Amino acid sequence: MSYTKNDLEKLGAFYSQQLLEDTVPFWFPRSLDPEHGGYLLMRDHDGTLLDDDKAVWIQGRAAWLLATLYNTVEPGKEWLEGAKSGIDFLNKYCFDTDGRMFFHVTRLGEPIRKRRYFFSETFAVIANAAYAKASGDQAAAEKARELFGKCIDYATVPGLLEPKFASTRPAKGIGVPMILMNTAQQLRETIGDPRCDGLIEQFIREIETDFVKDDIQCVMEQVAPDGSIIDHIDGRTLNPGHAIEGAWFILHEAKYRNNDPHLIELGCKMLDYMWERGWDKEFGGIFYFRDVYDRPVQEYWQDMKFWWPHNEVIIATLLAYTLTGNEKYAKWHQMVHDYAYDHFHDKKNGEWFGYLHRDGSVAQTAKGNLFKGPFHLPRQEWYCAQLMKEVTGTGFARDIFEIENKSIEI
Amino acid sequence: MSYTKNDLEKLGAFYSQQLLEDTVPFWFPRSLDPEHGGYLLMRDHDGTLLDDDKAVWIQGRAAWLLATLYNTVEPGKEWLEGAKSGIDFLNKYCFDTDGRMFFHVTRLGEPIRKRRYFFSETFAVIANAAYAKASGDQAAAEKARELFGKCIDYATVPGLLEPKFASTRPAKGIGVPMILMNTAQQLRETIGDPRCDGLIEQFIREIETDFVKDDIQCVMEQVAPDGSIIDHIDGRTLNPGHAIEGAWFILHEAKYRNNDPHLIELGCKMLDYMWERGWDKEFGGIFYFRDVYDRPVQEYWQDMKFWWPHNEVIIATLLAYTLTGNEKYAKWHQMVHDYAYDHFHDKKNGEWFGYLHRDGSVAQTAKGNLFKGPFHLPRQEWYCAQLMKEVTGTGFARDIFEIENKSIEI
Repeated sequence: MSYTKNDLEKLGAFYSQQLLEDTVPFWFPRSLDPEHGGYLLMRDHDGTLLDDDKAVWIQGRAAWLLATLYNTVEPGKEWLEGAKSGIDFLNKYCFDTDGRMFFHVTRLGEPIRKRRYFFSETFAVIANAAYAKASGDQAAAEKARELFGKCIDYATVPGLLEPKFASTRPAKGIGVPMILMNTAQQLRETIGDPRCDGLIEQFIREIETDFVKDDIQCVMEQVAPDGSIIDHIDGRTLNPGHAIEGAWFILHEAKYRNNDPHLIELGCKMLDYMWERGWDKEFGGIFYFRDVYDRPVQEYWQDMKFWWPHNEVIIATLLAYTLTGNEKYAKWHQMVHDYAYDHFHDKKNGEWFGYLHRDGSVAQTAKGNLFKGPFHLPRQEWYCAQLMKEVTGTGFARDIFEIENKSIEI
Repeated sequence: MSYTKNDLEKLGAFYSQQLLEDTVPFWFPRSLDPEHGGYLLMRDHDGTLLDDDKAVWIQGRAAWLLATLYNTVEPGKEWLEGAKSGIDFLNKYCFDTDGRMFFHVTRLGEPIRKRRYFFSETFAVIANAAYAKASGDQAAAEKARELFGKCIDYATVPGLLEPKFASTRPAKGIGVPMILMNTAQQLRETIGDPRCDGLIEQFIREIETDFVKDDIQCVMEQVAPDGSIIDHIDGRTLNPGHAIEGAWFILHEAKYRNNDPHLIELGCKMLDYMWERGWDKEFGGIFYFRDVYDRPVQEYWQDMKFWWPHNEVIIATLLAYTLTGNEKYAKWHQMVHDYAYDHFHDKKNGEWFGYLHRDGSVAQTAKGNLFKGPFHLPRQEWYCAQLMKEVTGTGFARDIFEIENKSIEI
């Protein structure tokens, strides 16, 4: 199968409409915390608040989303003010005295937990960068650049972060070059930073050299520092949706570099390898974990279907199709799109459920918690709508729908 | 329904036979590591070794099992030698220079991971204590007592262990008084220790006062230091199988104290509350997590069925029945017994699968990994066989079966 221009316009319209009339309205304006700033995002399927704590990752991601909507969809002041509320909360409450960020704080911003990672920081970078672009706030731009520098240091200077494991069997994860590549891409494409191009190239080389295994057609989640496979349970564990997220970060870079053929080839083969390993041929959907040699995975919930790998695979397949025209990707895109909107989307209350059993039934009804909030789904709908606009020349939701004065309040 | 003496004899025979002809032979002798000592326990359903790493909890638990079989079933020298191999490995490789134990080491005993808990230590206590009883080794007895003292210190002296959470919202888990109570019971009933009776009493009082909530008929997994419920996602999360494990530790104490009526009442009501919350009325089996107010649980795999809660509920219901004669407990025992041996037991290769989907289908085939090994299942079969022997006056497997010279080699 292939997509006609009309199909692609329809897809763009669908993603725009979902984003602006289903996903974003589930979260906003009700999640804005008028008393303490930031967002109250831990919500059940019907929007009921389950917990008024604040997850620092998700505070940053939500601020990023609102600023990005302002920058790319419509400069609505509610979106800008909403983004500012998150930025202020992050700056005021989410940094420890050592300059590192917390992972989990109370509604008032008191610390609950800090982790031995720097993902809170990477999401604060993209939030500050998008907000700086939206507002022209130079302090936010400075903050984004300064924090990005710290992330690079945390990733590269030994001993800056307390290690979780002893040094007996050193390992590195694909997550670090992936998140830093994407953070650099966002920084570059909002406020610019001369460090980004070189670093992105370096992260891509690391992924290609150490994590992508052509001989066994696989993208590893974890390897030894020299790129060799660690034949123990953790070292064998694959995360197909995560690897495919890495694939589309690389395909995005290919597009940014005027369709760089080597990067298209690299991103597409990462997608090919992990689609083959990750797609559940019996029930549909993307498995969470697999073992590289098909042995049992330590994580007992390994065959569940999570929302976010589906968001990433929807982006990757559509991007691969637009870059190559290969019909296989249109077919895969339709498969994963249909599975996801049939099974994850809550037609009654909007947004997606997060967690399905292998058979596609809902395992847990929360829409927001410490790990899920307004990020992967709206990013997917936003990215795909933007992509379809570029590819077809047909504009974003507001141009192609008659929204009849229905304002998207936040 | 009620169990006749003949029914109880049959149950005892069943558990003995499962233990000695199905569960123990799955693990031994093949898991003994002749080169480096200790045990190679990370095995797939058919016994294939998945990983040669060694989980420190499980090394201690396996040594405990072998020494306990020697002490209570038959003084076979293979069991004693097998226990010694684990004890030696623990002593030689599993302690860090600060006296704390690792969580995960390589086959050769090199450290991979140390955690901010002291469960490795509690299992080393019961292993050393059982081995000291079996062998008369005074050094092992000393080690058990010294380590037990350290565990009490870790649990009670603030600052000895690095906290995982900030002090904003202090919480305590039922796991600590539970594991220390059971460790003290084992120590007392193998080599004796004058500290045990007082500590056991103190742990039971803490559980009764702070974790058992009669007004809402619930046993909390976590509470504030004053015993109040923390109305956030983590604080609301219940672990019915774990609470029921606590119930049988208390029922065991009731039996030890000549059927102390108050402890029988306490243990039975903990079982009653958590059976009601934990038993899956649609598919059978015990849910892993529930929310105290029936809201969504953060852990998406919350409705899976794990092997070990079923082991604990099998013990608790049988013990409650023998202590009270209440037919409800015979009925529950039969329900959980039938569910477990129908769904978890691997009739082909022996032992149990560890992880089922909510509907009872197998989610993952490993019999051993970082968290599962020869402990909950053989302990259940051993404890229930012992209990039936006491109650009926009819002896253990070797007395009531004709094993026809089939030796249980290890």
